Amino acid sequence: MNTTPFFLDAKPVSYLIGEQALDSSYRLVEKYPRYVLLVDDNTREHCLPVFREHLPELLSADVICIESGEQKKNLDQALFIWNELTRLNVDRDALMVNLGGGVLTDIGGFVAATYKRGIDFANVPTTLLGMVDASIGGKTGIDFGKFKNQVGLFVDPVAVIIDPVFLKTLEEKHWQSGFAEVLKYGLIMDRELWQWLYGKDYHEIDFWDKIIVRAARDKIDIVRHDFEEKGVRKNLNFGHTVGHAFESFFLKNNRPITHGQAIAAGMICEAYISEKLTDLECSHKEEIVEMIDKNFSRLSVTEEDVPMLFDLMRQDKKVREGKLRFSLLKRLGKAVHDKEVGTDVVLESLEFYMHDRSRL
Amino acid sequence: MNTTPFFLDAKPVSYLIGEQALDSSYRLVEKYPRYVLLVDDNTREHCLPVFREHLPELLSADVICIESGEQKKNLDQALFIWNELTRLNVDRDALMVNLGGGVLTDIGGFVAATYKRGIDFANVPTTLLGMVDASIGGKTGIDFGKFKNQVGLFVDPVAVIIDPVFLKTLEEKHWQSGFAEVLKYGLIMDRELWQWLYGKDYHEIDFWDKIIVRAARDKIDIVRHDFEEKGVRKNLNFGHTVGHAFESFFLKNNRPITHGQAIAAGMICEAYISEKLTDLECSHKEEIVEMIDKNFSRLSVTEEDVPMLFDLMRQDKKVREGKLRFSLLKRLGKAVHDKEVGTDVVLESLEFYMHDRSRL
Repeated sequence: MNTTPFFLDAKPVSYLIGEQALDSSYRLVEKYPRYVLLVDDNTREHCLPVFREHLPELLSADVICIESGEQKKNLDQALFIWNELTRLNVDRDALMVNLGGGVLTDIGGFVAATYKRGIDFANVPTTLLGMVDASIGGKTGIDFGKFKNQVGLFVDPVAVIIDPVFLKTLEEKHWQSGFAEVLKYGLIMDRELWQWLYGKDYHEIDFWDKIIVRAARDKIDIVRHDFEEKGVRKNLNFGHTVGHAFESFFLKNNRPITHGQAIAAGMICEAYISEKLTDLECSHKEEIVEMIDKNFSRLSVTEEDVPMLFDLMRQDKKVREGKLRFSLLKRLGKAVHDKEVGTDVVLESLEFYMHDRSRL
Repeated sequence: MNTTPFFLDAKPVSYLIGEQALDSSYRLVEKYPRYVLLVDDNTREHCLPVFREHLPELLSADVICIESGEQKKNLDQALFIWNELTRLNVDRDALMVNLGGGVLTDIGGFVAATYKRGIDFANVPTTLLGMVDASIGGKTGIDFGKFKNQVGLFVDPVAVIIDPVFLKTLEEKHWQSGFAEVLKYGLIMDRELWQWLYGKDYHEIDFWDKIIVRAARDKIDIVRHDFEEKGVRKNLNFGHTVGHAFESFFLKNNRPITHGQAIAAGMICEAYISEKLTDLECSHKEEIVEMIDKNFSRLSVTEEDVPMLFDLMRQDKKVREGKLRFSLLKRLGKAVHDKEVGTDVVLESLEFYMHDRSRL
């Protein structure tokens, strides 16, 4: 296939998405006198050579390399990058290019936005999750103790360049993380996308280019309308209130799971809650549970873990005035936000997740 | 005197300035369900009782106390505040009220803007410097190693409440810091203000309320027109390119000086450069040097310190493409920005500062 990548000038961000996006991306970033390229130990090995081959104009960029992994999305690494930028005498007019997955673009965006009160940055996501979610929408940040993204800010990159060329080297666990978010777009806003995917094991899928452009455009559409997450953007949190609690729980217990595993589990719980509170049809809930179970194994949690999961949910950034608020499904392809949910129903959903294993 | 404070609704910021500003400020912040009050060991003792007396509506606010002092404007203290906010389960819809001088409002704004990707904050400055400068204009940040404000961002408070009631307990060194900035407004944009002050030792001045409203309005006027410091706001950097280098130099050598001492010294050097490069009249330069020497003693620097001062200047955030750019004076009350200055002239200005002590 030899297509023209999808281009969108959505000020202040320019998007270039699809095959050969990288090859034609220099025009988006050519105005900068200096470039700093942020990589991690994985992307330095697997993606940096590809990046240099397809975007040779940036060969002279300084390279800063951090450690990879969700557990490394912390203040120490931010400190390391601030120090490196300082050591390299990087000025305010430089561009930082974040080459990596969601952890790297989150931390890179945060550091760029706070270095000398802010330098411009561009995201070049290398994972499926990065391509369809993390690189788009300006959420940056680091984890803090057991709390995800506790420190960070909303700040847009100047460019997001999404080229599926990087998927060739993607590890198994990274496919899963991105796939959970792709399913989520289907559920909350894009029933056609859901129908493309329903019934498939993600290993069988062979049209990723098409999925990436579709899912990335769904995300862009939402964040353009509600950058600051005052309204419709909250729909993206479907699966995430319970999901983030799972993710923090396992991180805290030194058994880290992927973001995708956490969100997949969260979507099962929140589909259950949607049936109870926002009229999601039972058969649709079952379709969701079936599809998730086809692609993700259930997490190992027990009754004893419930109090800590609740405690972690209360720390969620979506909490307002101490009340838990969820984004839930009205039907397949349609979500609603800011639904207050009582702890009893959340508890039931966890019970449902732990015990309804008929399909396993 | 019993006047109505000056009120300005300059979206997204509301300003309330003058006597009894605090007493009538609750209406600016009443919409929040929860308040967190940030103080330091000084303001907890001297200003918190005054604050509570004049704004009793916020008696229920949680109080977080940090250490005072420019040397404490660091990442450890930011970390401490993020931790406290987390421990107190502070939600995104809380308001943080920064009660303190420039160091506290800088660090408080940075932490608020990055906690859970940003909570609202209000500044209640308690020092002259805070009232006429630091609390206005959205510059937040922390120092980093020997570099001032190396990590931070531009983000506006929702309200700035400037009440001279807090000046009653101000220490000597804090008067000096604010006074240097007041002089600067006169020099760069407000010749009438300069004329109010010229010839006076600041100890003699008895019309501070009037000066504060005037200087704060000068600053607001500039930052409203150029929040992101792309143009006219750069004029505020007069005295600061050399001044910050002095400040960092003495901090690094464990002999910290006040911001005012540093900027006063910087203004002497940059008045000298202005005479050389932007046609400042010699007699005006002499008027400036005379007034500064009347109010500030000269710093103890020698030839040996020059290389390090240059190195620190190159780290300045105003550097673009590696070149030193200054804001200089055309005449009294009028500045220009982005003037490239060769190292030879900067060196001469340091020589002038070190050796032209005819007036001392």
